[in-house]
Amino acid sequence: MPTNFADRLNALIRKKQSCSVVGIDPRLSQLPAVILGKYPNALKSLEDAADAYREFGCRIAELVAPLVPAVKPQVAFFERLGPAGMAAYADVCSAASDLGLLVIADVKRSDIGSTAQAYSDAFLGPVDGSGPPGFEADAVTVNPYLGSDGVKPFIEAAKVNGKGLFILVRTSNPSAGEFQDLKHEGKVVFEHVAEKVKEWGQELIGESGYSSIGAVVGATYPQEAAFLRALMPQTPFLVPGYGAQGGSAEDVRPSFNGDGLGAVVNASRSIIFAHSQGPWKEKFGDARWEEAVVAATKKMNDDLRPLIQSS
Amino acid sequence: MPTNFADRLNALIRKKQSCSVVGIDPRLSQLPAVILGKYPNALKSLEDAADAYREFGCRIAELVAPLVPAVKPQVAFFERLGPAGMAAYADVCSAASDLGLLVIADVKRSDIGSTAQAYSDAFLGPVDGSGPPGFEADAVTVNPYLGSDGVKPFIEAAKVNGKGLFILVRTSNPSAGEFQDLKHEGKVVFEHVAEKVKEWGQELIGESGYSSIGAVVGATYPQEAAFLRALMPQTPFLVPGYGAQGGSAEDVRPSFNGDGLGAVVNASRSIIFAHSQGPWKEKFGDARWEEAVVAATKKMNDDLRPLIQSS
Repeated sequence: MPTNFADRLNALIRKKQSCSVVGIDPRLSQLPAVILGKYPNALKSLEDAADAYREFGCRIAELVAPLVPAVKPQVAFFERLGPAGMAAYADVCSAASDLGLLVIADVKRSDIGSTAQAYSDAFLGPVDGSGPPGFEADAVTVNPYLGSDGVKPFIEAAKVNGKGLFILVRTSNPSAGEFQDLKHEGKVVFEHVAEKVKEWGQELIGESGYSSIGAVVGATYPQEAAFLRALMPQTPFLVPGYGAQGGSAEDVRPSFNGDGLGAVVNASRSIIFAHSQGPWKEKFGDARWEEAVVAATKKMNDDLRPLIQSS
Repeated sequence: MPTNFADRLNALIRKKQSCSVVGIDPRLSQLPAVILGKYPNALKSLEDAADAYREFGCRIAELVAPLVPAVKPQVAFFERLGPAGMAAYADVCSAASDLGLLVIADVKRSDIGSTAQAYSDAFLGPVDGSGPPGFEADAVTVNPYLGSDGVKPFIEAAKVNGKGLFILVRTSNPSAGEFQDLKHEGKVVFEHVAEKVKEWGQELIGESGYSSIGAVVGATYPQEAAFLRALMPQTPFLVPGYGAQGGSAEDVRPSFNGDGLGAVVNASRSIIFAHSQGPWKEKFGDARWEEAVVAATKKMNDDLRPLIQSS
């Protein structure tokens, strides 16, 4: 029986003393010049752009592997580049996995049951041994709009293959509430989703007391996070919105439990493009972009470390 | 200015006298033996399986191109096979497009605004001319759970590039109602979504009277379809669930307007795997699978033709 995903995640949080997740979201216009310079046709050629993303993404994984438990490669930026981009995505996921990082494939997939099965097989591996997975990942993000049958194949893969999932409950974007905040019988939609996520996760609770079925809860809505933390104490949260989207350590505090566990916090642009931002731009600049990534990651770890001390 | 997507779709419906969309959803276990036999390692090798999907998908497109306005390649089955599968997906989309078919990329993507932009660029092309698209498609399916900012990049691409989208309103699966039917101030969630879809589509209404911003409305819920048809008369519906999922011509009738327009109906398994089903299995069998595809498509056209006569 493979080890429960939540147990694996929590062991790495304890070992590395970090709850930071680095989002690998490459954008051509923001890559360090020292990388982009090697691919002069990247603006016109999807293949060259994909090669740049591969190099950048794999290097990010190497830089942060000693510092954080997990990375979250965002598939949209790779998919932007077509098949060549997806090949780079697979390579970045594999490289990160080989470095001992947990890979959270941020894909936000959803479909009817028989089709969701194909997505689950792609990222979490088939449960019947029918061929290798399409990509190497430990967990995926999933959109709940289609209800249980769109989620169940992922849950089954989590159970059989020791994988995890993070289901969108309350997203971090400005219009998140448009449908998520509609209220049915005194409970908003995202609360109904949260109750289902909790229910789905009951049979996947590991030795660390957390389920492999997690929830995406945006850092930009701390009140909602506090509410959800109380509602689903054994559900791990993946918290986007810290950093470039405006969330602070104070904003993510409500996502943690008293045992110092319960959440991992993602930052993407503020880490991977640190060389062009804030104090790191002055200190390191483009040529020393790798040092900027390491410094920004350590700063994030320091910023969040008080949250992972048990109270 | 490129031609409005809804106008292009409606012109093809009129020209081909068909509102059928053929879903290209390959599954290894159901491919005709004459194709699978060419790829003996397809069960173990993702590359070989992808080659089989490419051949099968391109051949399906050729067979149905004279008969239907559009195909709907389901990306999940290709993504299942990793990067090689995505290369096959791109080739199937391109081949279908070259044959004059409209390509509805069934991807059900969703994310926060800046990430949704990458998905939109991937499938509908960038609006600022920043490189070629990742895949060749005329329209995509989109999941609305994140609200307006997750949808707006697609709408902008629809406007600038003459593309279309179909936003999940009421899906065809058994658990569709779990969250879609929650009721806020007298209106269920999917009605709130529908109102937004209608609003988003206002500025993209073409000469045929329909918007390029469409809705996914499952054939398996005819009462909901009738309600939605009245609510959003200028919104084209993409209707899944006909055929293998149990929907009949009678079930899809409410999705049409009196002008014989307003909906396209998708069938996947009942067309592409016709050789192993119903009357076609007896008549054609595996060796003549191509004739089975054509016969099943013509049968579907005949079945639905009364719906596209204006009343």
